[in-house]
Amino acid sequence: MKRIAVLTSGGDAPGMNSAIRAVVRKALYEGIEVYGINYGYAGLVAGDFKKLTRQDVGDIIQKGGTSLYSARYPQFATEEGQLKGIEELKKFGIEGLVAIGGDGTYRGAHALTQHGYPCVCIPGTIDNDIAGTDYTVGFDTAINTVLDSLDKIRDTATSHVRTFVIEVMGRDAGDIALWTGIASGAEQIIIPEVDFDITKIAEKIRQGREHGKKHTIIVLAEGVMGGNEFAEKLDAIDNFHVRVTVLGHVQRGGSPSARDRVLASRFGAAAVDLLKEDKGGLALGIKNEAIVSNPIEDVLDKLETTSNLALYQLNQEISF
Amino acid sequence: MKRIAVLTSGGDAPGMNSAIRAVVRKALYEGIEVYGINYGYAGLVAGDFKKLTRQDVGDIIQKGGTSLYSARYPQFATEEGQLKGIEELKKFGIEGLVAIGGDGTYRGAHALTQHGYPCVCIPGTIDNDIAGTDYTVGFDTAINTVLDSLDKIRDTATSHVRTFVIEVMGRDAGDIALWTGIASGAEQIIIPEVDFDITKIAEKIRQGREHGKKHTIIVLAEGVMGGNEFAEKLDAIDNFHVRVTVLGHVQRGGSPSARDRVLASRFGAAAVDLLKEDKGGLALGIKNEAIVSNPIEDVLDKLETTSNLALYQLNQEISF
Amino acid sequence: MKRIAVLTSGGDAPGMNSAIRAVVRKALYEGIEVYGINYGYAGLVAGDFKKLTRQDVGDIIQKGGTSLYSARYPQFATEEGQLKGIEELKKFGIEGLVAIGGDGTYRGAHALTQHGYPCVCIPGTIDNDIAGTDYTVGFDTAINTVLDSLDKIRDTATSHVRTFVIEVMGRDAGDIALWTGIASGAEQIIIPEVDFDITKIAEKIRQGREHGKKHTIIVLAEGVMGGNEFAEKLDAIDNFHVRVTVLGHVQRGGSPSARDRVLASRFGAAAVDLLKEDKGGLALGIKNEAIVSNPIEDVLDKLETTSNLALYQLNQEISF
Amino acid sequence: MKRIAVLTSGGDAPGMNSAIRAVVRKALYEGIEVYGINYGYAGLVAGDFKKLTRQDVGDIIQKGGTSLYSARYPQFATEEGQLKGIEELKKFGIEGLVAIGGDGTYRGAHALTQHGYPCVCIPGTIDNDIAGTDYTVGFDTAINTVLDSLDKIRDTATSHVRTFVIEVMGRDAGDIALWTGIASGAEQIIIPEVDFDITKIAEKIRQGREHGKKHTIIVLAEGVMGGNEFAEKLDAIDNFHVRVTVLGHVQRGGSPSARDRVLASRFGAAAVDLLKEDKGGLALGIKNEAIVSNPIEDVLDKLETTSNLALYQLNQEISF
Repeated sequence: MKRIAVLTSGGDAPGMNSAIRAVVRKALYEGIEVYGINYGYAGLVAGDFKKLTRQDVGDIIQKGGTSLYSARYPQFATEEGQLKGIEELKKFGIEGLVAIGGDGTYRGAHALTQHGYPCVCIPGTIDNDIAGTDYTVGFDTAINTVLDSLDKIRDTATSHVRTFVIEVMGRDAGDIALWTGIASGAEQIIIPEVDFDITKIAEKIRQGREHGKKHTIIVLAEGVMGGNEFAEKLDAIDNFHVRVTVLGHVQRGGSPSARDRVLASRFGAAAVDLLKEDKGGLALGIKNEAIVSNPIEDVLDKLETTSNLALYQLNQEISF
Repeated sequence: MKRIAVLTSGGDAPGMNSAIRAVVRKALYEGIEVYGINYGYAGLVAGDFKKLTRQDVGDIIQKGGTSLYSARYPQFATEEGQLKGIEELKKFGIEGLVAIGGDGTYRGAHALTQHGYPCVCIPGTIDNDIAGTDYTVGFDTAINTVLDSLDKIRDTATSHVRTFVIEVMGRDAGDIALWTGIASGAEQIIIPEVDFDITKIAEKIRQGREHGKKHTIIVLAEGVMGGNEFAEKLDAIDNFHVRVTVLGHVQRGGSPSARDRVLASRFGAAAVDLLKEDKGGLALGIKNEAIVSNPIEDVLDKLETTSNLALYQLNQEISF
Repeated sequence: MKRIAVLTSGGDAPGMNSAIRAVVRKALYEGIEVYGINYGYAGLVAGDFKKLTRQDVGDIIQKGGTSLYSARYPQFATEEGQLKGIEELKKFGIEGLVAIGGDGTYRGAHALTQHGYPCVCIPGTIDNDIAGTDYTVGFDTAINTVLDSLDKIRDTATSHVRTFVIEVMGRDAGDIALWTGIASGAEQIIIPEVDFDITKIAEKIRQGREHGKKHTIIVLAEGVMGGNEFAEKLDAIDNFHVRVTVLGHVQRGGSPSARDRVLASRFGAAAVDLLKEDKGGLALGIKNEAIVSNPIEDVLDKLETTSNLALYQLNQEISF
Repeated sequence: MKRIAVLTSGGDAPGMNSAIRAVVRKALYEGIEVYGINYGYAGLVAGDFKKLTRQDVGDIIQKGGTSLYSARYPQFATEEGQLKGIEELKKFGIEGLVAIGGDGTYRGAHALTQHGYPCVCIPGTIDNDIAGTDYTVGFDTAINTVLDSLDKIRDTATSHVRTFVIEVMGRDAGDIALWTGIASGAEQIIIPEVDFDITKIAEKIRQGREHGKKHTIIVLAEGVMGGNEFAEKLDAIDNFHVRVTVLGHVQRGGSPSARDRVLASRFGAAAVDLLKEDKGGLALGIKNEAIVSNPIEDVLDKLETTSNLALYQLNQEISF
């Protein structure tokens, strides 16, 4: 290939810029031209392309968000939209596409693949819910952002001897809640992967207080239910005066962590390596510390998380 | 005086520990013993006292929250509670009290003063809403915490071309919103001190988008209304799909900023200086860079903020 | 005036970008065009100008460094260079200049003033050593950056029961050392404004250890001497195995703090207000919370710091 | 086993406290008593033990350094010291030891093992230079701390168009330099594992400047040479005016990252699991995302790093 393109789609994640930079720099190193597509699949269909130089991606490795912008674009589910996108790519002489994002992004790339257009996907989402990879770009930054908030809330919880429910992101996956729950020493983690018993949790809070615990922190994955709903359930059992914080979009932003930048850089370079060899229809992942690739269709619509009973059990044993 | 006590009361604020440390260290330096009272006025009435040494306040200067714990204790409004508190203090031979907190804390100290007991108040609240001082301990940390979140949300807002409403704390005061709005380059700041026109704001968002603005950030003081309520008003005018984040208790925590630690240290030492000279019934403040004191009753129940039309106007002129 | 320019010169400081943004936005608000001059006075003489739009200064409020670049340019001390600079400004129809920086920047602006060209100076330096202002833009961020490092070093110092000397910036001024020394609870602060007795300091370290102190942190202003030189003096007295860290250029970078961004925004707008009224030859400052201006020559070559014996004495009383 | 002990030894690392907490909590969960040994092997020989409760390790998960203190203690290399240590352990009825630290810590635990005393080692060092594990506790925090400094220095480097050499820790290993070099987009990484050609590096800097690069950042592992020595070599070739920053002990401190806390928690619990089954003489590691253990002697005195030519090569391809 002599010319490729790169886009970001879906919810933004810290490290997307590091991946874009790596795609561009690696491609130029290999003598391949690179176009950036603005606003994901919406920009693809609209032909919102710009040629990227080495300088265009200078000083973006450390920036949150995505310099190519992102958008949700349900219309790309139609064959018409897909063919229009391929037409635009061909108009520019672009022979392959790197698509950075989560599940929706993968679906778009899979559709292009089925129309014979070579795509490589990079997992970019804070939720860590993509199959075929141990970690997604953005997850490490997000858990550190959440942890920073949890540490701050613990200051207040301890000072006031209070119970806090913190609702964190993760869509249907519990990874953000599980990792930050362990890392913050939360007394209880509630994730979609494990059933919970509200009566037992209430009992634990009461026991903790009797044993002199100054605070109870419950980290709740959004995939289970909303924070306020959960707090109401708890307060219905006893007069805990539970406080709720919904961390919200703060979790998506911020300068990427060291690990996310390194992972994104590796993914970006690997995507170019695959396209250079005319390989498409693949989704990149990191498995056991090595960069791997799988057919997009194999990882599509599968939820894979690091959440497991061992980690959940660990927290039950050491956090109360 | 040969023996004094210190307590923290009301909502906790970063820098309370720095103030406690300074009270203890300065008192010991002056040959005065210090007792810490746990849980504010509740602990005062309950006699929950402990003698503090130099070591007890070692390595707390950097910690969020309050190592003496805090509590709201409405019962202290009764004369019975107040007299019981003074009785406990006298039982321990304690001749003066340093009370760190906000408006409620001041009211308690004022009641003790009226019963003839010497108290000095240190303004400790993130809200910056205490009269007689340009800044309260905790405000500087809080605005940096909020700003950090606003910077993160801007990453996402820019990437997705979205409008965000961020509800920040401040009770009836707009200072947190005003300072962080300017510092984040927010397009609009909504504070209790200035009326707003929802139609004009909607119009500004539309104009900004037409001029290529990638994001609209609206910082809303909680004293005006809730974030969701405000977002509904905006969305009722146009289909903005406004996103809301309520920052919540994160704003109260965190390691205090340099300025809060220095201010708290100065207040703590000044409080001891006053009690050493048998001066009570006073509230400390910083005015024009100098430590000052005012009769507690002069600053009680008055709302004083740095919020002013000049700062608000500044943002209107440079942020859109 | 219908057209003005802005430059940054000398060592960069966090908040310079916030000031540039405010100058540009406020000027455009007032119907005045703005040119940015790259590389300070070097770019002025070379005619390295570019017209700035509202968008050009979008999303820079939070960035460290200066988007107009900076340079030291000793040649600007010659009349020839100065006249060439004014010629370039007039060639572009630029009627006034905002110069952001420290002492060297002020000298350049003073020279232009003496040739009849209107300049307004904004104090931008981490050193807080400019007369006529309580604070310079960048100081607040720098002390928080230093404090973050001091907190980290204390972790290690405490864990290993060690003595650390930390050399911090500040040129001939002790402000950075004084504020961060108090804020970190440093056992000793060494600043140019106060003589020190190395024997007494050694004695204090020994006493502290006997009393169970886990660490000794000495914050040393670079204006006194180098960190290694100081450590050698201490180790010559006793076998302290003093560790030295020279914080270096880390102190100049980083996203500006809330306070620096607000201060820089106020300065930027005020500079435009002055030029709009054809006032030049002035240096802005913040005094007792209000924006003020002084003739440049009145503040030139004067060292003014917040360092005072009261703050220094405070630390002596509460930090050991 | 009914009673075990835990110590930290050697250079402190962020996450040691998270590991201590997990050892204590997991042991108590299993009905095993835990003693903390202060000051590593020095405290072991001196019998400086204290029984630890659930509360003793409350609110330490987030703290840098080690609450058990650490010390280098070369005397533990003698058989006399080792036997004295075992005697002290037996005196307290302690049947097994968890030793957290780096290479020196492992050597001490190996000696105890050879005398028949059951020990389990947890890799705790920022250097990531321990065999048998992909990551050591503290490495992830350290690279984020270094990265934060590199980002700040880049602000200044960009603003002034300068070349910076940043010396980072890592002893004989290049991991910290390699990961932070990639993550910061450093133009050059110098590590012990790969030879460098100073002439080629000088040539790259010159080329970069000709192509408009605003800064050159060189990340240098301390295991290669000192930062000042390297800068002199560069300046001897051309007049680069290279600036040097030696990051120093800042790298060892700070609140542990999410990943370090989770890893330390897993290690701490796993160590108790092994001792509970009377297994000793083992060093824990994480390999391909799973907790593993190896005989201490198999990992002793071996340098193992993630540094590899692939990562180094990646940076060469995308960072200039």
